[in-house]
Amino acid sequence: MTDLQAYLSEKRQIVDRALESLFPDPQGPASDVVRAMTYSIFAGGKRLRPILCIAGAETVGGEGRDVLPAACALELIHTYSLIHDDLPAMDDDDLRRGKLTNHKVFGEAIALLAGDGLLTEAFRVLAGMPVPDGTPSEVLPRVIRRIAEAAGFGGMIGGQVADVQSEGAPPEAERVRFIHEHKTADLITVATVSGALLCGAEEELIHSLSTYGRRIGLAFQISDDILNIEGDRQTLGKDVGSDERRGKQTWPGVFGLEEAKRVQQDLVLEAIESLSPFDHRADPLRAIARYIIERRK
Amino acid sequence: MTDLQAYLSEKRQIVDRALESLFPDPQGPASDVVRAMTYSIFAGGKRLRPILCIAGAETVGGEGRDVLPAACALELIHTYSLIHDDLPAMDDDDLRRGKLTNHKVFGEAIALLAGDGLLTEAFRVLAGMPVPDGTPSEVLPRVIRRIAEAAGFGGMIGGQVADVQSEGAPPEAERVRFIHEHKTADLITVATVSGALLCGAEEELIHSLSTYGRRIGLAFQISDDILNIEGDRQTLGKDVGSDERRGKQTWPGVFGLEEAKRVQQDLVLEAIESLSPFDHRADPLRAIARYIIERRK
Repeated sequence: MTDLQAYLSEKRQIVDRALESLFPDPQGPASDVVRAMTYSIFAGGKRLRPILCIAGAETVGGEGRDVLPAACALELIHTYSLIHDDLPAMDDDDLRRGKLTNHKVFGEAIALLAGDGLLTEAFRVLAGMPVPDGTPSEVLPRVIRRIAEAAGFGGMIGGQVADVQSEGAPPEAERVRFIHEHKTADLITVATVSGALLCGAEEELIHSLSTYGRRIGLAFQISDDILNIEGDRQTLGKDVGSDERRGKQTWPGVFGLEEAKRVQQDLVLEAIESLSPFDHRADPLRAIARYIIERRK
Repeated sequence: MTDLQAYLSEKRQIVDRALESLFPDPQGPASDVVRAMTYSIFAGGKRLRPILCIAGAETVGGEGRDVLPAACALELIHTYSLIHDDLPAMDDDDLRRGKLTNHKVFGEAIALLAGDGLLTEAFRVLAGMPVPDGTPSEVLPRVIRRIAEAAGFGGMIGGQVADVQSEGAPPEAERVRFIHEHKTADLITVATVSGALLCGAEEELIHSLSTYGRRIGLAFQISDDILNIEGDRQTLGKDVGSDERRGKQTWPGVFGLEEAKRVQQDLVLEAIESLSPFDHRADPLRAIARYIIERRK
């Protein structure tokens, strides 16, 4: 666990520095949107998706620094989704990671545009990245396409839609699985495979990483649901109990808390099992899988 | 003019068919967002940006059909920007092209996500397109990057921000130019050059097309301002006089109506002048430039 904490902390710093370099000093008539974008990007995210991208690259023998732009792009996409998700028309949240949500600070119009700006910037960064040495140049558009699919209406946005539209509906197994897999697991899965793809990994290894990503993505969202019941408001930096108040579809809501915890354990074991083709270089991914169950925020 | 109408009508049909092929039949828990996306995509747009992309490709000797996915992507980006622009937090519009705006039909949450979905889909389509024969594969990421730049916080989104934040401020020349150039001209410019870039055109020709795009982009937004004063509500399919009621920065508001018309004429002449390196294959672009002054909607 200490090893993992050191690993996460080191990678987080690398990602933070790379993200800082993306944004100009805010100036000119559009400076507010740059301020709003950087506010949410540097509001204390765990950088899980960028770290998975880097760890995926390293697992297949690549260099983390070669995939850093892709890692950043994934965080830009994740952050845009949070800003839009917090808007009054969606979840109407005041707090995120212990800070005021974007629209509470900058107003709804700027928050909306800051989200749009982050999503667009993600694809600018991706399209402008150098392909790692030895990888064919056609791989880059393929990775961009996979990321757009995972983030789009067949992926994360589809999950958001189902989430919003299922509020107050009776808890239902098929629906909660759809929401969790698309809203959360799709982007986590593509994060895990994109770094490896950019390093030229073969399809078989990508398949193993994809299985890993889907399992921990689902486990991660279930742990989010559990923390929304059992978590500590102070540690989490956001409201607890909000899922129930809103009538959200959650894993504990459908299957009960104990069964949710059991499924989460199984998913983590399956995720680690799917890493069997890899040597010690997959140890960070193994540790991240275990950490998902233990996390407090 | 009749030639141009036939040209526009033919290209519009080609673009419409290509756009139709992008969207699946709406089904499953996220079907509402697909319905909302297609509602706005097929709400009667002029397809100016896709047609400019195709005309740009043909001007440098390429085939329009080879750049059709890029043409569609530009329309997806344009349509997302309209959906978000119409939201209550932004311009709060009820009508667009004579139809109810997206959020008036589907609600704010779905309209927001439909916009996000269209923007993401644009990059999925771009990244998945085959590079035209004879063009090096590295050109595709470069085009994606240029489109993201034009649509991002340094381009269209920056223009939107300045537009929203300047409402009610005293009319000011530098500000209205910033808004028009970024909010409107940047995407029109990249539309004109992207088709030619994908067909492998040389930098010098791209530069000429870029000048053309900037000039007609600005002229197009000035004609929008003029139509908001002199236009016919029925023909336009949206409110007239709304710019003045909202205290929007407009070209006639800053420089007066006559001067706005004079500048628009000059811009169109400069746009046509910038096409001097090209033969008759640039005739559609020349006709489009003239049409911008004559259009009634």
